[in-house]
Amino acid sequence: MPERGILITFEGLDGSGKTTQMRRLAGRLRSEGRAVLETVEPGGTRIGKQVRRILLDPANHDLTPTAELLLYFACRAQNVEELILPALARGEIVLCDRFTDSTLAYQGCARELGAENVRQLDRVACQGLSPGLTLLLDIDPEASLARARRRNSEDSPEEGRFEEQDMEFFRKVRRAYQEIAAREPERVRVIDGRAAPEAVEQAIWQVVRSHV
Amino acid sequence: MPERGILITFEGLDGSGKTTQMRRLAGRLRSEGRAVLETVEPGGTRIGKQVRRILLDPANHDLTPTAELLLYFACRAQNVEELILPALARGEIVLCDRFTDSTLAYQGCARELGAENVRQLDRVACQGLSPGLTLLLDIDPEASLARARRRNSEDSPEEGRFEEQDMEFFRKVRRAYQEIAAREPERVRVIDGRAAPEAVEQAIWQVVRSHV
Repeated sequence: MPERGILITFEGLDGSGKTTQMRRLAGRLRSEGRAVLETVEPGGTRIGKQVRRILLDPANHDLTPTAELLLYFACRAQNVEELILPALARGEIVLCDRFTDSTLAYQGCARELGAENVRQLDRVACQGLSPGLTLLLDIDPEASLARARRRNSEDSPEEGRFEEQDMEFFRKVRRAYQEIAAREPERVRVIDGRAAPEAVEQAIWQVVRSHV
Repeated sequence: MPERGILITFEGLDGSGKTTQMRRLAGRLRSEGRAVLETVEPGGTRIGKQVRRILLDPANHDLTPTAELLLYFACRAQNVEELILPALARGEIVLCDRFTDSTLAYQGCARELGAENVRQLDRVACQGLSPGLTLLLDIDPEASLARARRRNSEDSPEEGRFEEQDMEFFRKVRRAYQEIAAREPERVRVIDGRAAPEAVEQAIWQVVRSHV
């Protein structure tokens, strides 16, 4: 495989397996001798974690949608400049759990803040960087909510703000993701997230191996 | 005086007397029977205070300029939607200690992030709202630093991050403020901030009385 830096993002509803699959892919790439940086949005940096706390604190139910949008991009700007661009410059593979497609789907579409506003902020925050490959783990909203509930009750009860939204919200998010994939089929590959983890891992590897 | 809502912003370097003069103006307007909302950027709302803590924590010296810019606008978006627009809709006079002109002068110009980036974020964050009147309290950077140092050593030692910048930074900020005032002389009135507080108060009142 040629050694070149690439940003690969994982997208999908909560519970779609992004985090698990990203770890597996990182392990596989490392076992092939590649340098991999794993990060997450929001919260991949020390500063991003401070902003993430504001975003996910259920006490902040009065956070306005526009302020929320700007906080997400503040995290991203920090992550891009502090971690992602330097790693790409070193020729590493950067794996990021959520990126601007999340903001387009959740805030731009489902919260109706408008795709153009999101794209404008992306231009300011990301300095022209966009993912070389995006893996969209597609599951239906019912499965997402069931998995996210199970997980939140186990280890992160404080991160449940999104679950208060109704099912229609998640349907809109999924539709928005599918539209992004339809518009950019070369960059965004749809993976069936309902399959067994090993099958998903294999499907992801088939796509990734031709990109790295 | 006719009863109509207006956003009046106070701008200027640290130590220019913005906060003192804003309180005096608020008192005078209230004594004339007007409803006044006083707020501040960043930090005028409960959520804004959480973001302000990130912005002003000296431990966050690795905050990137672009992330900083986005955090300022997150505060502002929250303030505009939660406090300012509702107060204006009730016909109140809103006094705000710093607003987008600060971001233009400090981040856009002195930190060289570009005025156009700042204006783009302003359009997203402020929903088309701009000040009806801006009072620019003009002092030279030497006086600013001396006053700010005196004040910080007294009551807010943790808010000294800006002081670490060199004098040239503040000269750029002052120049940017003066350019904004030259471009929009109707909206932005320059007040000599080196005068005695009573004289500054009187100069401000002469300008404000024709606007409210």
